[in-house]
Amino acid sequence: MRQCDARNLTMMMDFYEMTMSNGYFLKDNIDEWVAFDIFYRKNPDGGGFSIFAGLEQMVEYIENMHFSKEDVEYFRGLKLFSEEFLQYLEEFRFRGSLYAVPEGTVMYPGTPVITVKAPIIDAQLVETALLAIFNHESLVATKARRIVRAAKGRGVSDFGARRAHNMDAAVYGARAAYIGGVNSTATVLAGQMFNIPISGTMAHSWVMKQKDEYTAFKNYAEVYPDACVLLIDTYNVVQSGVPNAIRVAKEVLEPMGKRLKGVRLDSGDLSYLSKEVREMLDEAGLQDCIIIASNSLDEYLIRSLISQGAKIDSFGVGERLITSKSEPVFGGVYKICMATENGVEVPKIKISENTEKITNPGLKKLWRVYDKDGYAIADLLTLADETVDMSKPYRYADPIKPWKKRYFEDCTVKELQVEIFKDGKLVYELPDIETIRSYVNNQLEKEIWQEEQRFENPHTHYVDMSLALWDLKERLLDEKGSF
Amino acid sequence: MRQCDARNLTMMMDFYEMTMSNGYFLKDNIDEWVAFDIFYRKNPDGGGFSIFAGLEQMVEYIENMHFSKEDVEYFRGLKLFSEEFLQYLEEFRFRGSLYAVPEGTVMYPGTPVITVKAPIIDAQLVETALLAIFNHESLVATKARRIVRAAKGRGVSDFGARRAHNMDAAVYGARAAYIGGVNSTATVLAGQMFNIPISGTMAHSWVMKQKDEYTAFKNYAEVYPDACVLLIDTYNVVQSGVPNAIRVAKEVLEPMGKRLKGVRLDSGDLSYLSKEVREMLDEAGLQDCIIIASNSLDEYLIRSLISQGAKIDSFGVGERLITSKSEPVFGGVYKICMATENGVEVPKIKISENTEKITNPGLKKLWRVYDKDGYAIADLLTLADETVDMSKPYRYADPIKPWKKRYFEDCTVKELQVEIFKDGKLVYELPDIETIRSYVNNQLEKEIWQEEQRFENPHTHYVDMSLALWDLKERLLDEKGSF
Repeated sequence: MRQCDARNLTMMMDFYEMTMSNGYFLKDNIDEWVAFDIFYRKNPDGGGFSIFAGLEQMVEYIENMHFSKEDVEYFRGLKLFSEEFLQYLEEFRFRGSLYAVPEGTVMYPGTPVITVKAPIIDAQLVETALLAIFNHESLVATKARRIVRAAKGRGVSDFGARRAHNMDAAVYGARAAYIGGVNSTATVLAGQMFNIPISGTMAHSWVMKQKDEYTAFKNYAEVYPDACVLLIDTYNVVQSGVPNAIRVAKEVLEPMGKRLKGVRLDSGDLSYLSKEVREMLDEAGLQDCIIIASNSLDEYLIRSLISQGAKIDSFGVGERLITSKSEPVFGGVYKICMATENGVEVPKIKISENTEKITNPGLKKLWRVYDKDGYAIADLLTLADETVDMSKPYRYADPIKPWKKRYFEDCTVKELQVEIFKDGKLVYELPDIETIRSYVNNQLEKEIWQEEQRFENPHTHYVDMSLALWDLKERLLDEKGSF
Repeated sequence: MRQCDARNLTMMMDFYEMTMSNGYFLKDNIDEWVAFDIFYRKNPDGGGFSIFAGLEQMVEYIENMHFSKEDVEYFRGLKLFSEEFLQYLEEFRFRGSLYAVPEGTVMYPGTPVITVKAPIIDAQLVETALLAIFNHESLVATKARRIVRAAKGRGVSDFGARRAHNMDAAVYGARAAYIGGVNSTATVLAGQMFNIPISGTMAHSWVMKQKDEYTAFKNYAEVYPDACVLLIDTYNVVQSGVPNAIRVAKEVLEPMGKRLKGVRLDSGDLSYLSKEVREMLDEAGLQDCIIIASNSLDEYLIRSLISQGAKIDSFGVGERLITSKSEPVFGGVYKICMATENGVEVPKIKISENTEKITNPGLKKLWRVYDKDGYAIADLLTLADETVDMSKPYRYADPIKPWKKRYFEDCTVKELQVEIFKDGKLVYELPDIETIRSYVNNQLEKEIWQEEQRFENPHTHYVDMSLALWDLKERLLDEKGSF
């Protein structure tokens, strides 16, 4: 099994990372550290939460990071950079630290999911790739969760590779979908790289290529007697597909002591057809034969099918999952929150006409606050040097209604970010994918309110601040207030 | 420079390609050839055409195709496949032929853009990857063209990497966008791999990191006096950004004999601000300083900005280009059209309740028909063994109104598909990217009606058939008519 992606993707960055880096190299003290937060502003599809995915790929990216001789030569050819800087690039390795919530963590808008604390050049060079990974994998994991929720315990498989935005989107999308809760993927490379269960049976071409539908089914059953799932909609589901499937179950499989495992519908009125098919299968004594349905499904169509009483046991979900079609952009951003000036860590704030776009300054800690039943009632941002003591009522600032005196009482807290890289060294043991997937399930079953998980008008999770962070933000805004 | 992508992506396929292949291996004559067409059903965004992109990556994929020992071991571990088949995989190389329209060809729904003619296993194994490449790159090239059209000759640059669906989507998306007509990309790896112009200057962090905006601008100008573009919206465009930019132009650049090349707006009311900025720059004698704008732009916003008289010279387009946000799925499909049975090539048709989903059977040729002014008035599908003689009126079948006797008169034709692989060997010389890009421009300027290029209610391109193909299709439908 492939353990990791060993490509060197250092060059997968926006060019401004390079122009700025050369600028810092020539004009600044490149050994002074800065900090950037990765956060996002809005949950996709009007949802109440998102799921963080991609940490493993971020780690591999950073570990493989370096400029090859050809890379440096390419930059030299642009005749824009100083020779000293180009030589510096040849030796470049990421020297910074990276903090992140564990992969699979339920996350909310405005919270620092990842913090990069590093020399300025190191921090800039990783921006583009970290964002691309964060945005893509979190997008698909979050979408997958919505689809899995709609399926209410029925199986969901990722069928999306052919409509993915190229190879990585298919492969890392399959991984993210599995983290989000789908049961398997059709994408072999994802199965191989990440140890995800893979599924797949036949295409229409298998049926069309052969003499007739019955022969195609019979041949398949003889090759895969223990895993026989037949695609029944190539010609006509009711008049041909199901009768031929039943005939194969009786004439080919049962004499071998085997059962027909399933049939798949890939077109037509899935609600109506599934009920017809179920009835025909049951009448033939094939109550244990499952019905799988696919065809441009998403969470809303699945919910609709179930509410119509469709007899579908498992859903194959393709393009609308792998591209997150209804909302294909996850808007994660990378904003500076601290810069060292003459040895002093100075908090930075990005102001904006739009108050929601004003950033939270300084090095911070991200805490999740739980009530006595273990439900997450809020996230809390504090300054990095604060500790939070919930053994007594804890006063916090509600950024929406800052004039109110609010307290957390009878609560517990957990700090969410963990150290991943320290001074360029990986200090975190990456969990395996099953652990990540269970972690997602566990949070959503035991910690996250159902009211945040519904599709329509979900509860907005509170993201509060310590009084110290609130005061810092107010002070910095006041200083910038002349604009 | 990297010449190509040397990854072995053979495993990037749906698992059913493998289950079917093992089935064919055990149950069929795997040396008999079949043919599959790749086509699509609908132009994205209600457009009148699409642009084919991705051929170069398809060629690299097929040339690198093989199963490593670990790949075969992975399959062996699934305990589903015959040992003979697994050994066959170790020796597997693509032995088939592939025909495609040249990359950059303007294409229309329902036309066979690519035809794979190959032994059945070879033809199945390439399905998923070819579709993923076709769908992704054609999607982005087509979207890019819409955006370039809206910009009416102003510059367009791809800024999308951070919101792309992972690494390949950023890199191959940048390539596709360049083919579609954008002028440059911010994605360094795409610039390096494909020899695309790259662009980039500074992020807000450059300004925020330094003592003040003026210092940040001054430092940048000193490092890049010949390519100085300043980001002017970190604090306040009118009160701070422009005055500081002008001051740098006067105090830093002009004494060096240099000019301020441009300023960039990344937030706020781009129409209003661009006019204010233009006026301030002009008053300061900086008429040659261009204004670049970015912030979630797409073809509609660009058109709106231009119609409002916004003073923008160049657009940076990110997430809505690289994900084709308004329509992130390009629905290319892979349908069998011929299977050899006992040495005879038998045409295959996929029927459907939905008449638009019925496929065109048999091995075909795809022709473009031009009027005497060189405009493409229709595409024409014929059987593969037909020749088309337009020296006299040519009777064809209009599939929408088949009862009409229709003729092409005073027309010329060109066959669109060319041979790419023949019996497993690459027989096509891939054009360089500038050639592909010029080919796109040339078609859209000289061959494709403006009525097909407009956004609202574009003319639907005619896709007609030879009488022989029409008769074949009717006959096969008649045979299947019992369903």
